[in-house]
Amino acid sequence: MKALPDLSAVEAMDAADPLRSMRERFVLPEGVIYLDGNSLGAASPAVFGELQKAATQEWAEDLIRAWNTAGWFDMPVVLGDQLGRLIGATAGQTVVCDTTSINIYKVLHAALAMRPDRHVIVAEGDSFPTDLYMAEGVASTRPGAVLRLEGVDAANVEELIDDQVAVILLNHVNYKSGELRDMAALTRKAHDAGALIVWDLCHTAGAMPVELDKANADFAVGCTYKYLNGGPGAPAFLYVATRHQGEARQPLSGWWGHARPFAFEQGYAAGSGIRRFLCGTQPVLSMRALKGALDLWDDVDLTVLREKSIALTDLFIQLVEAKCAGYGLELESPRDGSKRGSQVSFMHEHGYRIMRALIERGVIGDFRAPSTIRFGFTPLYVGYKDVWAAVAVLEDILRTEAWKDERFGVRTAVT
Amino acid sequence: MKALPDLSAVEAMDAADPLRSMRERFVLPEGVIYLDGNSLGAASPAVFGELQKAATQEWAEDLIRAWNTAGWFDMPVVLGDQLGRLIGATAGQTVVCDTTSINIYKVLHAALAMRPDRHVIVAEGDSFPTDLYMAEGVASTRPGAVLRLEGVDAANVEELIDDQVAVILLNHVNYKSGELRDMAALTRKAHDAGALIVWDLCHTAGAMPVELDKANADFAVGCTYKYLNGGPGAPAFLYVATRHQGEARQPLSGWWGHARPFAFEQGYAAGSGIRRFLCGTQPVLSMRALKGALDLWDDVDLTVLREKSIALTDLFIQLVEAKCAGYGLELESPRDGSKRGSQVSFMHEHGYRIMRALIERGVIGDFRAPSTIRFGFTPLYVGYKDVWAAVAVLEDILRTEAWKDERFGVRTAVT
Repeated sequence: MKALPDLSAVEAMDAADPLRSMRERFVLPEGVIYLDGNSLGAASPAVFGELQKAATQEWAEDLIRAWNTAGWFDMPVVLGDQLGRLIGATAGQTVVCDTTSINIYKVLHAALAMRPDRHVIVAEGDSFPTDLYMAEGVASTRPGAVLRLEGVDAANVEELIDDQVAVILLNHVNYKSGELRDMAALTRKAHDAGALIVWDLCHTAGAMPVELDKANADFAVGCTYKYLNGGPGAPAFLYVATRHQGEARQPLSGWWGHARPFAFEQGYAAGSGIRRFLCGTQPVLSMRALKGALDLWDDVDLTVLREKSIALTDLFIQLVEAKCAGYGLELESPRDGSKRGSQVSFMHEHGYRIMRALIERGVIGDFRAPSTIRFGFTPLYVGYKDVWAAVAVLEDILRTEAWKDERFGVRTAVT
Repeated sequence: MKALPDLSAVEAMDAADPLRSMRERFVLPEGVIYLDGNSLGAASPAVFGELQKAATQEWAEDLIRAWNTAGWFDMPVVLGDQLGRLIGATAGQTVVCDTTSINIYKVLHAALAMRPDRHVIVAEGDSFPTDLYMAEGVASTRPGAVLRLEGVDAANVEELIDDQVAVILLNHVNYKSGELRDMAALTRKAHDAGALIVWDLCHTAGAMPVELDKANADFAVGCTYKYLNGGPGAPAFLYVATRHQGEARQPLSGWWGHARPFAFEQGYAAGSGIRRFLCGTQPVLSMRALKGALDLWDDVDLTVLREKSIALTDLFIQLVEAKCAGYGLELESPRDGSKRGSQVSFMHEHGYRIMRALIERGVIGDFRAPSTIRFGFTPLYVGYKDVWAAVAVLEDILRTEAWKDERFGVRTAVT
């Protein structure tokens, strides 16, 4: 076990941080330690600049012509390729569009249709719920389709893959515990059983290197407003491996996915490649904001990012367990950094009140019922001293029992 | 027939225009006469202000807390109600979300399921194509469902409604000809035959008063980036009559449509009211831009708007037919202003080249194959003198045969 670092050791870690300069490229309010970038990433001048340019120059000056002159129409595939580099996808397999939920619908539909003699969708019971809800929606439109999720988690998923399973939907990192799954191994197991696999990357894209192509993944989806910092509700993405693009079809067959969208033909003809997974006109302003955020990644080495992520979360666990011992916190995330996303969750009977008290003191994490307090560590703008300071506030709240204040007992939405 | 107005008469029309001051609330480039607001509406400082506030204050300062403090989570229903006032929908029936294409999928699915003993979707063959493509998509996921569109237009649609028809999808205004359909009469015919009706309002929302409730409409969809000026790809809307909201279900059953989205339950339970037509996290920045655009409508009387729209389009037709006679233009839009949307289309054998030449001289309309040149008149920022000037340029291009210039023969995307 490593010796507990003191403040000067923590400051030395910041001084040696190769990502330290990235912090200056984000805007964070004074007095806030932001540990919720796993829910909504931080804003940046790069994003503000793109937004302003898109609105006051491209739209206002070029008007309808901007669809061509400013490249708006091609943004879903151009940004898709730019994002693809962060998730191990070579060009032509990733597209930015719509929402994660809608993209799940598209790829699950496509996968089911590619296994016509099978009828089961397997998903984890503790997935982020919209994954399950969308799988239900898909099953409701495919006669005979069944959603199997009872008792499924990544640990036992292989026992549940049989010859009736068409497709498996897994979260690369569990949103609550932060547990990281072995993409390559689970993909292999799915393929060995003749099934296809869909990876939900919401909690890994921008948090660590992801290797979709190397893992031989079939499909993936994810959001861009967490670790990728694309802005609130920024358009989502989806990935379809090149080998499936000829066969894969999805029913949200709008004109942006048509082979000839401007020929105004009566019948739908799916476009070639990844474009057939587009549907309708995309929100250009939100898309341009995302471009600003993605541009920041040009200067980031994902291996360095991952090292820092593990160091930040290791430090947080070490400090909490040393300084807050005896106050009833229990680690919910994997202790082994290599099996953990860029977040740390603790359980506490009074987790709700504790998180309310933390937020009031400027340490922003979030709460997930019934008892999880969750802290996300975005290596681009969170430093080691932030971790130190956050734990100091947590320790103070627990020691003084500040969380018992009656106003923290009133249930309101917490982040 | 009215006497042909001269320039001073046209200037007098501008001087008497009760909407004249609205022009100052939009940004339009110098030297441009913008007659394509039916494709992409113009930008406004009101929108820029909302965008900047949402990005640099709400997001940057409040971060994740802004979902509550800035009302982001409720925007789809709040903006829905605000927009509802422009389409004759009382509160709780309209929601702003996703794209028109995706919203068509939702409401067609819901309507089909409400007529389980019927299996036909009727749509017009000359609908804007994405309507047809989405109807195809819906039909592909409903065993036995059939899309009937051969030979269907609004004139004969009642002959095609039989006891197998579950739902009819009609465009309130045809995107190409500008023909306006009688919403109340066609809705009655659909209901008399036991069918449900979906109205596509893309070319009427913000162009004229629309009366969904009065017409007893069942469902409607539309976009916000044309006459509503919400910005490129601004989120779309959908309307579900209150009487259907208990029964109507749709398969894009994401967490935003759940009865308890933050309870993180495993099973989907459709929310009450219009919220069940939501799916995933919405693009907040584009949504806030739309808010800025919708706020401008607080000061607009839709009856006055419609009067001006008819006067503008009447004037355009009258001037074109007087000044450009003999050059091969043929009116494609209804001559009767009461049967026309806020656009005018002419056919010309060399329509493509003519539109290219017009755009080069700053008169921006658009072209639809094979021979339609299309001009949209947004009463909020187009004046009568703009009409005069646009016709003068058109006349000059036709008289001098400037459109014959070889560079206009090269096919590129025109708007």
